[in-house]
Amino acid sequence: MVEEKIAKELRAIAGGDGYLDSREDLLNYSYDSSVDEAMPDAVVLPNSTEQISKIMKIADREKIPVIARGAGTNLSGGSIAVKGGIVIALTRMNAIKEFSKENRYAIVEAGLVNLDFQNYAMKQGLFFPPDPSSWAVATIGGNIAENAGGPRGVKYGVTRDWILGLKAVLADGTVIQTGGVTFKNVTGVDLTSLFCGSEGLLGIVTEATLKLLPLPPFKQSLQVFYPKIDDASKTVARIIGSGIVPVALELMDRVVINVVEDAKKIGLPKDVAAMLLVMVDGIESECRNQVRLIEQICKEEGASRVAIAENETQEEALWLGRRSALGCMSQLRPNCLLEDVTVPVSNLPVMIKGIYEIATKYNLTIGVMAHAGDGNTHPMIVTDKRDKEEWERAEKAIGDIFKLAVDLGGTLSGEHGVGISKKPFMNLIYGEAEFRVLKDLKKVLDPNGILNPGKIM
Amino acid sequence: MVEEKIAKELRAIAGGDGYLDSREDLLNYSYDSSVDEAMPDAVVLPNSTEQISKIMKIADREKIPVIARGAGTNLSGGSIAVKGGIVIALTRMNAIKEFSKENRYAIVEAGLVNLDFQNYAMKQGLFFPPDPSSWAVATIGGNIAENAGGPRGVKYGVTRDWILGLKAVLADGTVIQTGGVTFKNVTGVDLTSLFCGSEGLLGIVTEATLKLLPLPPFKQSLQVFYPKIDDASKTVARIIGSGIVPVALELMDRVVINVVEDAKKIGLPKDVAAMLLVMVDGIESECRNQVRLIEQICKEEGASRVAIAENETQEEALWLGRRSALGCMSQLRPNCLLEDVTVPVSNLPVMIKGIYEIATKYNLTIGVMAHAGDGNTHPMIVTDKRDKEEWERAEKAIGDIFKLAVDLGGTLSGEHGVGISKKPFMNLIYGEAEFRVLKDLKKVLDPNGILNPGKIM
Repeated sequence: MVEEKIAKELRAIAGGDGYLDSREDLLNYSYDSSVDEAMPDAVVLPNSTEQISKIMKIADREKIPVIARGAGTNLSGGSIAVKGGIVIALTRMNAIKEFSKENRYAIVEAGLVNLDFQNYAMKQGLFFPPDPSSWAVATIGGNIAENAGGPRGVKYGVTRDWILGLKAVLADGTVIQTGGVTFKNVTGVDLTSLFCGSEGLLGIVTEATLKLLPLPPFKQSLQVFYPKIDDASKTVARIIGSGIVPVALELMDRVVINVVEDAKKIGLPKDVAAMLLVMVDGIESECRNQVRLIEQICKEEGASRVAIAENETQEEALWLGRRSALGCMSQLRPNCLLEDVTVPVSNLPVMIKGIYEIATKYNLTIGVMAHAGDGNTHPMIVTDKRDKEEWERAEKAIGDIFKLAVDLGGTLSGEHGVGISKKPFMNLIYGEAEFRVLKDLKKVLDPNGILNPGKIM
Repeated sequence: MVEEKIAKELRAIAGGDGYLDSREDLLNYSYDSSVDEAMPDAVVLPNSTEQISKIMKIADREKIPVIARGAGTNLSGGSIAVKGGIVIALTRMNAIKEFSKENRYAIVEAGLVNLDFQNYAMKQGLFFPPDPSSWAVATIGGNIAENAGGPRGVKYGVTRDWILGLKAVLADGTVIQTGGVTFKNVTGVDLTSLFCGSEGLLGIVTEATLKLLPLPPFKQSLQVFYPKIDDASKTVARIIGSGIVPVALELMDRVVINVVEDAKKIGLPKDVAAMLLVMVDGIESECRNQVRLIEQICKEEGASRVAIAENETQEEALWLGRRSALGCMSQLRPNCLLEDVTVPVSNLPVMIKGIYEIATKYNLTIGVMAHAGDGNTHPMIVTDKRDKEEWERAEKAIGDIFKLAVDLGGTLSGEHGVGISKKPFMNLIYGEAEFRVLKDLKKVLDPNGILNPGKIM
């Protein structure tokens, strides 16, 4: 519990309805989309950067941990209050403060929901490329803290690529403004990128300047089925190697297809080994050319069926299975461990084969989805944390998966972040020197170690 | 001078021909492409990261300044040894260590010349988007240190957008590896971006992992002349606002056109107020559509002549004037002060008008070039540093230009960096809080302050 004297100070800043500390309220902020849980001591819902600055001054003075949080769609435990403390929920700060159509940027508050912004921008003929699968609820601030990716990352990259500047509150309450509104800007050191993906360890992002793109005039998707998964992943490597840059290139394996079909009855064939979803965008004639070329590659690599969407309704139908996948897998058993190891695309076939061997070795059900065009692989282990013996096998399997990814030239996380869940494996990537730099940066920006303690390192 | 005891140690590391300290040799490393000059005490030409690590250990122990340097094409004085010390020239480290066509990345040493790499990559059907105008000599390491831009930045962004990972040597000789080879990677904090554009203040980049793109199959350029410069800059804002994303959108004003035509006799009309160069790339039909649309916008905005390149020879001819511009301007008088203020594109007309008013106010010749599609404006003041009174006027004019850019929502530097030349104006952008963060980062990574002292802050 937060001492009453401090609670009073926090209430004075955020207002009575901006401070929560009943057990019921705290429970709502005790988990995110990972498997981890921990109770915070209090939740504050500020309305402004100034309020957050004041809260940080108190927290720093009292050495109370602070965890910034958006919608809690985080998959690596990054928003869990592992050491208790104050959760600052940014959901009330959701304004679009500035929108320049002619200069293609917007300044928004961190608590704005990604999809709400997309809908707004779309009306102006623009879009913000980052599209995490959780975008219907995930906030821009959360996207930035995790440097979130999404299906269209193959063509458009990740969140950091689209952030021009940030307003952030440091551990001691200092407010800084990084970057600006121009697309080119090398005035001073790139503090913007340092905060993107820093998982709340270095400061709390309260506002962001987003770089936008014109909406492409046309898009078209293919849904492709394979009797052999190896042929599907070879297709991915061949498409990427061919020079085509699709918007999205997604893979779902037999396990996931079957789970989705059982739950949704959308007509997916249950006897195939894998499905690819490929989307291209741009001008219509170019898209149609690319689709033809992709179809040819798919068939040459052994696809048994290729469906091409000819209108928006068909587009939606093709993507429905992919969109439902995590939800359906999560309903299968009490826990679904979703990882996001990333390997060079040419190693995707070996990575997927390796995941199946690991599933067999530990007698586990592992479904595989992938933002395959990026080599960003999502093995999903459905399990039950209460079954201690099975849980141990699942944890061992994850360790093996991480080691395999690194052996294949890859990395632990493409888009979900390290948080709690990948912390034990950070030494596969960071050596003593890299840890020292990270600790030094943390120490100098947050000397009392109050910002999201217990994460990454 | 470096003490003989230390010189001996450095010679033992880099070899006899890898250590220079004669006055003639030092003079070669006393300047870059800015107007500043200062003599280093020694120059070391290492062959490996390990050698640089050893050099740094000595420099840190002895508290000797170290300035890393590529080809010295820097325009803001970033490679000048303002406090003496050791210049580490990376030009011998120019290997392409790994090239993956299928996964579209390359690992190269920092001293590799940008254009040498482009030529290599082109043979594999790929390219590295950053194209600073100095690319025929500028090194990848220099591009990274300055986060260099170039004409095709409008579509493809700047150096940082294409760096997947770095090997860097810290002030104390520690070697760190950031990032990896995958396009998506959020394992740990983004140290890669922190080093990109840090102008040698935080560490010395020795190797970089570059992200590559497939070569577009077609490109086409337009050369457009205007009787009124305002119409040219309005065209720029309209093209960008229309949703077309050209590769390059360059502007040259009457002053520059006349200087280039006098020097090169390439048939540029001397009575126009401005020239635009626009390039699009992609598939041929799309390019031709875009060119038609751009031509229409240009004519509607008052263009007096539009030339469209129909083959590679014509492409080269159209771009020749732009490529020669800085060289021709520099030959006009002893000094050419080239700045790179950047404003939102919609403010480009006001920025250019303001520059002309400043030229009149201080009775100076200022030519204007711009990567106009980015709002990245290059006012070029031709002057003579030896004429104290004129030099003072030039310096005042630069101050006014910086203030105007910031008033218009812009920034000091789009691609050249701060170095020495923009240091006095940093407080237009950084407040106390941002300076404190920068100083803190510097202090923790370089406690003895030996890395490129006297720059940025």
